[in-house]
Amino acid sequence: MEKPVSPSRSLVQMTELILPNHMNALGTAFGGVIMSWIDIAASISASRYCSKNVVTASIDDLHFLAPVHKGDVVCLRAQVNYTHKTSMEVGVRVTAENPRTQQHRHTVTAHLTFVALDENYKPTLIPPLLLETEEEKQRFKQAEMRRKWRLERRKQFT
Amino acid sequence: MEKPVSPSRSLVQMTELILPNHMNALGTAFGGVIMSWIDIAASISASRYCSKNVVTASIDDLHFLAPVHKGDVVCLRAQVNYTHKTSMEVGVRVTAENPRTQQHRHTVTAHLTFVALDENYKPTLIPPLLLETEEEKQRFKQAEMRRKWRLERRKQFT
Amino acid sequence: MEKPVSPSRSLVQMTELILPNHMNALGTAFGGVIMSWIDIAASISASRYCSKNVVTASIDDLHFLAPVHKGDVVCLRAQVNYTHKTSMEVGVRVTAENPRTQQHRHTVTAHLTFVALDENYKPTLIPPLLLETEEEKQRFKQAEMRRKWRLERRKQFT
Amino acid sequence: MEKPVSPSRSLVQMTELILPNHMNALGTAFGGVIMSWIDIAASISASRYCSKNVVTASIDDLHFLAPVHKGDVVCLRAQVNYTHKTSMEVGVRVTAENPRTQQHRHTVTAHLTFVALDENYKPTLIPPLLLETEEEKQRFKQAEMRRKWRLERRKQFT
Amino acid sequence: MEKPVSPSRSLVQMTELILPNHMNALGTAFGGVIMSWIDIAASISASRYCSKNVVTASIDDLHFLAPVHKGDVVCLRAQVNYTHKTSMEVGVRVTAENPRTQQHRHTVTAHLTFVALDENYKPTLIPPLLLETEEEKQRFKQAEMRRKWRLERRKQFT
Amino acid sequence: MEKPVSPSRSLVQMTELILPNHMNALGTAFGGVIMSWIDIAASISASRYCSKNVVTASIDDLHFLAPVHKGDVVCLRAQVNYTHKTSMEVGVRVTAENPRTQQHRHTVTAHLTFVALDENYKPTLIPPLLLETEEEKQRFKQAEMRRKWRLERRKQFT
Repeated sequence: MEKPVSPSRSLVQMTELILPNHMNALGTAFGGVIMSWIDIAASISASRYCSKNVVTASIDDLHFLAPVHKGDVVCLRAQVNYTHKTSMEVGVRVTAENPRTQQHRHTVTAHLTFVALDENYKPTLIPPLLLETEEEKQRFKQAEMRRKWRLERRKQFT
Repeated sequence: MEKPVSPSRSLVQMTELILPNHMNALGTAFGGVIMSWIDIAASISASRYCSKNVVTASIDDLHFLAPVHKGDVVCLRAQVNYTHKTSMEVGVRVTAENPRTQQHRHTVTAHLTFVALDENYKPTLIPPLLLETEEEKQRFKQAEMRRKWRLERRKQFT
Repeated sequence: MEKPVSPSRSLVQMTELILPNHMNALGTAFGGVIMSWIDIAASISASRYCSKNVVTASIDDLHFLAPVHKGDVVCLRAQVNYTHKTSMEVGVRVTAENPRTQQHRHTVTAHLTFVALDENYKPTLIPPLLLETEEEKQRFKQAEMRRKWRLERRKQFT
Repeated sequence: MEKPVSPSRSLVQMTELILPNHMNALGTAFGGVIMSWIDIAASISASRYCSKNVVTASIDDLHFLAPVHKGDVVCLRAQVNYTHKTSMEVGVRVTAENPRTQQHRHTVTAHLTFVALDENYKPTLIPPLLLETEEEKQRFKQAEMRRKWRLERRKQFT
Repeated sequence: MEKPVSPSRSLVQMTELILPNHMNALGTAFGGVIMSWIDIAASISASRYCSKNVVTASIDDLHFLAPVHKGDVVCLRAQVNYTHKTSMEVGVRVTAENPRTQQHRHTVTAHLTFVALDENYKPTLIPPLLLETEEEKQRFKQAEMRRKWRLERRKQFT
Repeated sequence: MEKPVSPSRSLVQMTELILPNHMNALGTAFGGVIMSWIDIAASISASRYCSKNVVTASIDDLHFLAPVHKGDVVCLRAQVNYTHKTSMEVGVRVTAENPRTQQHRHTVTAHLTFVALDENYKPTLIPPLLLETEEEKQRFKQAEMRRKWRLERRKQFT
């Protein structure tokens, strides 16, 4: 079995500027654009964690808590919370900042699951998480519960 | 209270061609691109349903079941499953088709929640669903259960 | 000779939402963006019809009948009207809808010609059209006349 | 009546590099991308000619004569051929060049019609063409004939 | 005069994944894409520093030291080095990382100058830099020298 | 040694229309978009000059002299000024034009250095410049001086 890896190795910080290009017809940032950035940040995090190629398997909780405006700076912070054999859950926290006032708003929280792939694009084992702090242990437990619930929903609804 | 509306009014069919532009580094369609299309199809469906502007509130189940390749035709089918005061759940089913063989694969299932907005961008009531077929009633019940679970998760994890 | 194929097999329905991203400097949808969508819808239609790769050979009639605005939903409907050895004409009808009022406007009509390609990217025979309804026969005859005129213009003007 | 204007005032030269971003699934430049560039070049030409805003009214002849490859340089040359009250025909000639061999290929010919708009976005008169060379007179006559044929087709087919 | 501000307030960390979308015809990341990201990172840095809108005034040194490949993760780190009345120099350091091997390469260094704008889009004074560490003082001195040289070149060559 | 080549062979004229797509949050054209176009125009110029693939090595002077607005036509003119073994300097002059008034403004001047590559992507010799006019000789001398200064800065600051 591979040596445990610290969640901190998977930390990704991404910063994007909201341009007219990213707006919906209502004048706020288009949801699909922010989802794309979340997917990119999370996939870099997963790939750094396991040193392998990864693919998105599912998104199970993505909540838009506040709208994002033109000229806002969007900061994404992604980290691996949980691993299970060949898959891992990545949490992404998105904040929007007005760079002229430095005010921050928590705008999106998302949890995504990725699968690691070997050279033949088949699922492959990843190292377990090295849980050191109380926060890391807490996140692991919550992600484990989300996974149980997700599998249950998937059985019922797909 | 507004007159009930049939789910069929909200039906959206969207077709996209996978170009090199949409690929990830592994040679399959980039998850973020497909999420964008899902968000667009679902928001058109919600907007048609309630004849109002809408914003994405959350995605609670989005599963990638199979990879999508260059040259594939992606078909999205979105429909409102459930309404609750000012919000509605839209289900999106994505299939990928090789247009040269006509083979279809079910590739993504997603459930998104939208909120209807009035002219001041405040949440506003939407008409209730007119449930006629068994399938429509079944979808409504499942979406109701997903909503209950989503609110529970949100309480615990956000 | 291959078995005749019904035009209905080539039917493509595409839906797009007009975002700020698609606007020209006058605040209406940029013609080039709509042309791109027409080309995609028509090429999927042609490819489905003949189960082969196809390339655009010409556009001979594309009329913009009404402007398209931000927030409009654009619906494209493409279908094969006519075949001739290795080529086929696809008709595309574009309507714009305000999803809040459900009002539709016919905005563009276009006729495009595609050539089917074999594995070596050479033109290859396609199945003839199975014409059953009066409308299908009428469309075939009109497309045949357009082809005759197009070849005449091409002789004179290229 | 406004003073006649030389076609040379409307000359536009546009150069684009074919990046992977512009490819279709077959490895050649996607038709829709080239159509977008044609529409942009032609609309700049029309706008320069009449010193007004313009909108695309129709494309009546657009022939793809040869495929365009990755790394090719695409040169577009647009010029007003013909005017009629509030509208004008712009001819666009597209060549593709391999910049490493300097070989050129004529790849597309297109004729587009634009309408000039006043400040209220209503059609407005444009200056007549000043025809000096034999080539200019020839182009005018051909465009006039295309217009007659186009109106006839439109009557029959729209 | 405004209170001095620490350069650390201007720190921006940006992460991007190299997709096929970003490639040139040679199979490495297209220079123009990386320049766009540099401009965005630097403008967020400048805007955060002075709490105002900013515009790019010049780039005076941008060196591509190594090519960037598909699947690489690009990390940009931007910080204000120098201020002068209404303008400031931002340094950007770009590294490329293969997320599967965690190998980093220094790929670009760039120095850009931005001007702060008031509500009427006129240049406006910004706070001076609070220089505390030796490194900060060294960076300031180097940027001052670059500024002198840049003004000299501009006098000679524009 | 290869036969000298005239700078005129490297002349590139590029024309772009400023769409909402290209704007920053302040309502003027985003610097990064214009830099991309400059990089494309300059790389076509360098590639035409030496009939080889080229990569951007550095930008040493890029000055934004005036903002560019929505609806403006941007004209780029690129030409090789200087060569040195395997590298060459390309000068790019960007003007913005309001097509309705035909007013031009000089908006950006930039100097970029490119390296020519052989089939194995290694630097390769390019033909020397054929300097005929006084202007060509003057440009060569200025570029030579910029190169000297750039190498000096690079020694000090990278």
